[in-house]
Amino acid sequence: MLNDVISTLQGRQFQAIEKLKEFLAIPSVSTKPDHAGDVRRCAQWLCDHLKYAHLEASVMETKDENGKPGHPVVVAKNKHVAGRPTVLLYGHYDVQPPEPLELWKSPPFEPTVRKDDNGHDAVFARGAVDDKGQVWAHVEAITAWQAHGGLPVNLITLFEGEEEIGSPSLETFIEHYAKELKADVCLISDTGMVDRHTPAIEYGLRGLAYAEITLIGPSHDLHSGGYGGAAPNPANVLARLISSLHNDDGTVNLPGFYDDVLALSETEKKLNALIHFDEAKWLKGIDVPFAGGDQQYPILERITSRPTLDVNGLTAGYQGAGAKTVIASQASAKVSMRLVPRQDPKKIQQAFEEAVRARCPKNVKLKIEWFGLAPAVMTPIDSKATKLAAEAIEVAFNKKPVFSRTGGTIPVAAAIKTVLGCDSLFVGFGLPDDRVHSPNEKFDIEMFNKGIITAAALYERLAKLNG
Amino acid sequence: MLNDVISTLQGRQFQAIEKLKEFLAIPSVSTKPDHAGDVRRCAQWLCDHLKYAHLEASVMETKDENGKPGHPVVVAKNKHVAGRPTVLLYGHYDVQPPEPLELWKSPPFEPTVRKDDNGHDAVFARGAVDDKGQVWAHVEAITAWQAHGGLPVNLITLFEGEEEIGSPSLETFIEHYAKELKADVCLISDTGMVDRHTPAIEYGLRGLAYAEITLIGPSHDLHSGGYGGAAPNPANVLARLISSLHNDDGTVNLPGFYDDVLALSETEKKLNALIHFDEAKWLKGIDVPFAGGDQQYPILERITSRPTLDVNGLTAGYQGAGAKTVIASQASAKVSMRLVPRQDPKKIQQAFEEAVRARCPKNVKLKIEWFGLAPAVMTPIDSKATKLAAEAIEVAFNKKPVFSRTGGTIPVAAAIKTVLGCDSLFVGFGLPDDRVHSPNEKFDIEMFNKGIITAAALYERLAKLNG
Repeated sequence: MLNDVISTLQGRQFQAIEKLKEFLAIPSVSTKPDHAGDVRRCAQWLCDHLKYAHLEASVMETKDENGKPGHPVVVAKNKHVAGRPTVLLYGHYDVQPPEPLELWKSPPFEPTVRKDDNGHDAVFARGAVDDKGQVWAHVEAITAWQAHGGLPVNLITLFEGEEEIGSPSLETFIEHYAKELKADVCLISDTGMVDRHTPAIEYGLRGLAYAEITLIGPSHDLHSGGYGGAAPNPANVLARLISSLHNDDGTVNLPGFYDDVLALSETEKKLNALIHFDEAKWLKGIDVPFAGGDQQYPILERITSRPTLDVNGLTAGYQGAGAKTVIASQASAKVSMRLVPRQDPKKIQQAFEEAVRARCPKNVKLKIEWFGLAPAVMTPIDSKATKLAAEAIEVAFNKKPVFSRTGGTIPVAAAIKTVLGCDSLFVGFGLPDDRVHSPNEKFDIEMFNKGIITAAALYERLAKLNG
Repeated sequence: MLNDVISTLQGRQFQAIEKLKEFLAIPSVSTKPDHAGDVRRCAQWLCDHLKYAHLEASVMETKDENGKPGHPVVVAKNKHVAGRPTVLLYGHYDVQPPEPLELWKSPPFEPTVRKDDNGHDAVFARGAVDDKGQVWAHVEAITAWQAHGGLPVNLITLFEGEEEIGSPSLETFIEHYAKELKADVCLISDTGMVDRHTPAIEYGLRGLAYAEITLIGPSHDLHSGGYGGAAPNPANVLARLISSLHNDDGTVNLPGFYDDVLALSETEKKLNALIHFDEAKWLKGIDVPFAGGDQQYPILERITSRPTLDVNGLTAGYQGAGAKTVIASQASAKVSMRLVPRQDPKKIQQAFEEAVRARCPKNVKLKIEWFGLAPAVMTPIDSKATKLAAEAIEVAFNKKPVFSRTGGTIPVAAAIKTVLGCDSLFVGFGLPDDRVHSPNEKFDIEMFNKGIITAAALYERLAKLNG
């Protein structure tokens, strides 16, 4: 039966791309209030296509823990059959902001298929690989299975529209619908591969704590000649404050930051060795002569299993061409920390707040706003579900996957474990050079097609989960 | 004769404001290339009005020391009479950028007369007091003198369009036309008063060194999850670099920065005491509980006679609403230093460049661009010209001026001394709350009118300079 499904899918590769382009053309930027309508339209578009696959699908409203309405979730189910394993398929249809726009070779919401820098066909658009392309790979597989007598598992989709803003409403949603979302395993395709020849099952993700610091000094912008030397300058203070967050050796300077960090096990070190991570190639890929951060650890560990603190944005004063001699009234920084297993996001949040408040001089007002807080998550490497997933990958890639951890965050993964009690399988098809969150984001067409086949095989293999 | 001139001027206060509003409506923002046409139009407007005053006036082209064309200079002369003192009147018709626009109560280039926060009539517009309003006060006085038989001195105007970008072309211009610009004294109205009841002659100005630092890390923006921990983050590095430029006590941390600083003389300390500078009022004016900077010095000294380093702008990564987890490829800061007498701008420039290059990690590319370099300048307090200027101020204000130093910079003042060999008289009419370089810049109408009378009296008194 899987062969029939695969045969159907191979016959509609062109249509699959065309459908993905439709999906990508909707600018579902979750962080921007003026795109709320686009986000909703995108949810509706996705829901309609799940209905066409003969699933019972709906666009469901959400709200966060304080009752503030959020972007909707698309939930769909096939006809569940008692005794079959239930698979919760998680994905997200929202995307990161596309800025800076001028760096895109084709507009971010006009999906374009062309060769990438290495001569591989790819679709370029915001969200191509993160996560619309991967969600669509599953929808293709699901639709084909449904046309061939129906999926062999009980499926529930949980496609959210707030992943890129830290999933503020999804935990509340899962808690509220815990009974309806109950599953044996959660399947997530929002991660990547080691390279185009090396598929991966990712068994660990980092968490996230994202803050915006705003400093307000003088009540209005001042002439740096008339006031410089005595007026507290929030831009000077901001630089000092941010600088205080790292030690000279590249480690993060917050009390207790590393206290709970879980070190890599010997097994994990062996799995990392199997990845054959090429540091020189990695450096070349971003065009820097050597890496930053904590030099005690190999680059692969620094980007997957060590915690970080990065400035994601700085804004102060005059940003135009040339010179303006102004002491700006206000300066702000967006700062995010990636967290690793055992670090408690709330504890880190508190350590950050306390340190920043203590280090900020009292003649500058300080505001800290948080945009998402998620713990890291680990999934067992040796479970039956993981073994079945590895088999499914082999069907598509004709190669066994490696096991790796990823530095990214899927905020809801921890809640799926704690609230629904099921582990997640992270099987993703992104490539390291896909420019996720950057201009010219892409999804490799070959990986998209292999992702579709993997998804089809996953449903077949996972049918054996309870056997 | 002065009385007749004053009487005429008092009769046309309304027209003077209307003319000033015309002048202010021209957006002559020198730092923005797309305003070059407005800058030129403004020069032409000013030149025409000097012709109407029966001066021989022209818009003259400029170029900097590398031959790059600059904004024009308006030079005008009356009929010179042998034996009379020659006064070089310096001013500038260019203005600072008006941003941030949303903070203006009335648009920056739609001059509006209304009450200020303290109930005094003022004209609000970019450039109101810096320097168009003060230039126009002189043009009013000149025009009235010309209508009453002619100015009693030989006048040369030198109105430039590049003051706000550090006067890159003016020194070359002065060198080229040194013979034509030769004068006994230079008169500059581009400074301020202590408060509305205390006129001032400013005898010292700070210099300026203005740099833009740009850091380039990865070749493109990166996902902070996928790359964070090992990718060099230019925003993190920038904060660290800027932070390194100050010591914990608020002093500037550049080798040799204070080596050549001229300390205040006992006479200057006595003159400062006469100003009765109100620190509490100053702090209230900018709404901060206590001042920043080097706490060893009184605020008045910190803002007038101590050197500084201030960040004037910061730009990196995502600046929109909400969160974006990006490691930006690039980060930049605009940084300016105010210099005091005896500090050599070229030496400071070199110290800055060397320190920043040495402190920048080698996996981040560094570019430093300079936007102006000017030494501080001092003018004698006890010269005949200064005494005559004090008398002129007394005519308008019925009060003797105090003597003070200012923290601002007039880049060309040093060149006027070194190339033309004449001292400058700094007689200005700005008030501390005029929001120079800030949104809602204003010029107090009463100070404008008193400035016009002072200017008229200045030409009469300075006629006695060689007597």
